[in-house]
Amino acid sequence: MQSNYLKKLREQSPLIHNITNIVVANYVANGLLSIGASPIMSSAIEEMDELPAICQALVINIGTLTEAQVKAMIKAGKSANKNNTPVVLDPVGVGATTFRQESVQTLLHEIKFDLIRGNAGEIAHLAHVNWSAKGVDAGTGKANLSQIAKDVAIKHNCIVAISGEIDYVSDGIKVAKIVNGTHLFPKITGSGCLLSAVCGAFLTLSENSFELTVNACTAYAIAGQIVQENLESTQTGQFYIGLLDSLAKIDDEIVERYANISFE
Amino acid sequence: MQSNYLKKLREQSPLIHNITNIVVANYVANGLLSIGASPIMSSAIEEMDELPAICQALVINIGTLTEAQVKAMIKAGKSANKNNTPVVLDPVGVGATTFRQESVQTLLHEIKFDLIRGNAGEIAHLAHVNWSAKGVDAGTGKANLSQIAKDVAIKHNCIVAISGEIDYVSDGIKVAKIVNGTHLFPKITGSGCLLSAVCGAFLTLSENSFELTVNACTAYAIAGQIVQENLESTQTGQFYIGLLDSLAKIDDEIVERYANISFE
Amino acid sequence: MQSNYLKKLREQSPLIHNITNIVVANYVANGLLSIGASPIMSSAIEEMDELPAICQALVINIGTLTEAQVKAMIKAGKSANKNNTPVVLDPVGVGATTFRQESVQTLLHEIKFDLIRGNAGEIAHLAHVNWSAKGVDAGTGKANLSQIAKDVAIKHNCIVAISGEIDYVSDGIKVAKIVNGTHLFPKITGSGCLLSAVCGAFLTLSENSFELTVNACTAYAIAGQIVQENLESTQTGQFYIGLLDSLAKIDDEIVERYANISFE
Repeated sequence: MQSNYLKKLREQSPLIHNITNIVVANYVANGLLSIGASPIMSSAIEEMDELPAICQALVINIGTLTEAQVKAMIKAGKSANKNNTPVVLDPVGVGATTFRQESVQTLLHEIKFDLIRGNAGEIAHLAHVNWSAKGVDAGTGKANLSQIAKDVAIKHNCIVAISGEIDYVSDGIKVAKIVNGTHLFPKITGSGCLLSAVCGAFLTLSENSFELTVNACTAYAIAGQIVQENLESTQTGQFYIGLLDSLAKIDDEIVERYANISFE
Repeated sequence: MQSNYLKKLREQSPLIHNITNIVVANYVANGLLSIGASPIMSSAIEEMDELPAICQALVINIGTLTEAQVKAMIKAGKSANKNNTPVVLDPVGVGATTFRQESVQTLLHEIKFDLIRGNAGEIAHLAHVNWSAKGVDAGTGKANLSQIAKDVAIKHNCIVAISGEIDYVSDGIKVAKIVNGTHLFPKITGSGCLLSAVCGAFLTLSENSFELTVNACTAYAIAGQIVQENLESTQTGQFYIGLLDSLAKIDDEIVERYANISFE
Repeated sequence: MQSNYLKKLREQSPLIHNITNIVVANYVANGLLSIGASPIMSSAIEEMDELPAICQALVINIGTLTEAQVKAMIKAGKSANKNNTPVVLDPVGVGATTFRQESVQTLLHEIKFDLIRGNAGEIAHLAHVNWSAKGVDAGTGKANLSQIAKDVAIKHNCIVAISGEIDYVSDGIKVAKIVNGTHLFPKITGSGCLLSAVCGAFLTLSENSFELTVNACTAYAIAGQIVQENLESTQTGQFYIGLLDSLAKIDDEIVERYANISFE
């Protein structure tokens, strides 16, 4: 996989508007800065017209959702759609409660998303496939994730990315399987949320959302993989911080060298 | 102190629902993941019936309390009580303002807690004992902490844990004094909040809340103690991150070796 | 620059009330603890009379502003003014949206601030000077920052500090130029927010707000500079954590040795 996306991202340093949760707001901001983008965090309804108009992407994350946030998300999403700003949905723990399920249905109805990114439990829920998700964690199941990614992509007419030991990215026709990554990702909070934001930053770089999402997921997985090479499996704190360093250090050449992707 | 609680915790990986503050939400989530539990953070009133029913423990923390949160806490607490889910109260800085004092009284009236965990200033306040707390910090005083722990445990018919240089845990009859720990704990924010969440995770492992709380406090104190062994006293940032690593690495054997507990 | 402010700060350990954003609440609390102060975070309107009365400084930060927070800020600011508690304003990304602009105008009208601290984009906006700010980042421009600091200081009758490659601090008459610092500051989130809180802690130490702000900005810049000496330019995560260690380690002697300040 040859590309110059990381180089381009750092040259353009896109401004990314995040409507996100209180758990990961800090880490997502630091991660975006590390990789070369510029974050702005806001859920204030008063800013939801203007911010998506001055930002290059909008990332909506339901990790600690409130009723007020749902309203802000809809307003921001509509503004982004009007301005042709790419919009990403991270349906954190969508299956866990009725409130999350209904809110995500509302968001999917009101906003045109360019990308939905979640773990297996979250995307399986959107596909109405049986899966034992565990709160906001992926949980376990036996469904065909490649097919699920494709189905949800067709249903919502967007790119879908499922993150896990293997990442699946689909546009409804093609499916990319990315085998990079590390078992340490699920041991830190917000590793998925940050990936959604990184995908948002990549989506500002061209019109090819599928290729950009594949590249974003691959670069991110490799950044984690490289940190893990020098750590014991219990060094979750060091991994948390090391991932920021790695996102700043990784470049297109490293991604090309490490990438392990196959297409279906 | 011989036990297999850490082993058991990692096998069961209990789902812990935290209603917590914006300062420590991230650290508590990371700390729970590190020790082997699975966190979910939410204060949305719409989720407060369902979440405590699917979680194995509920941890209520008043660090950045709002009126909306108090309502959510009551609803979640009642749901947890109905489902026999253990509930922990962390009365952060309760003495600092009238709003915190009144809210904690309301919570104690509406919810049956299994454990109240705080610093000396916070628990002394609940015992109506004179103590110079300092905002959310422990402050200084000369009261008999062992007696205070016992009194508050009797009054609220639950386990009480006071954290500090020495930890005191009481069920109203016995008092355990834990001498493990490090002076670096009060130099980072959220070290007490994370301990409350870790106690919540331990409380899912059996019916013996006193023993479980003693074990949780001891394991946590030792995790910090071990990190400090390799640090200078000014390395607060390294301690913050190292504690996560240590919580992931610590096991029942290490706890047994380091534990320094006496009973009254 | 000879002073004993860091020594004094650690002896007095002032209690600092922060009304701040969800992105940096944790880092600001940890940073204040590291340097020797004691943080309390709260935006609850119910606490806004009492907290400024028991705290030694109030720091108002509009990073993730809401309508409810604006009301809380006004109440807290008035209480602080009544109690002669120093008040700091950090107008994060003030130029980005109408809501931020109008809210800051309201705050400046209702509250007497002792210090306004921001990046070039934010303070240029307050001076109605043309500047291409970028969301919450400084952006670029060609205005005379020394003059801008002076103008805004005169207009609002307070100290003004502009942070960046060079820091400018003015009381409306004098301007101090601080050349210490590191290019890594803008690569982490909240480095400016934490500096505002550190300035709040310094302002509790005497009546000389100009000298105290110069000292706070210099000490903070040097703390960062020292961390960077041992890091590669991509180690943003290590810088984030190392800055906490450095704030704990730095003392008045180190500040004197490193300080590079000129006065206009």
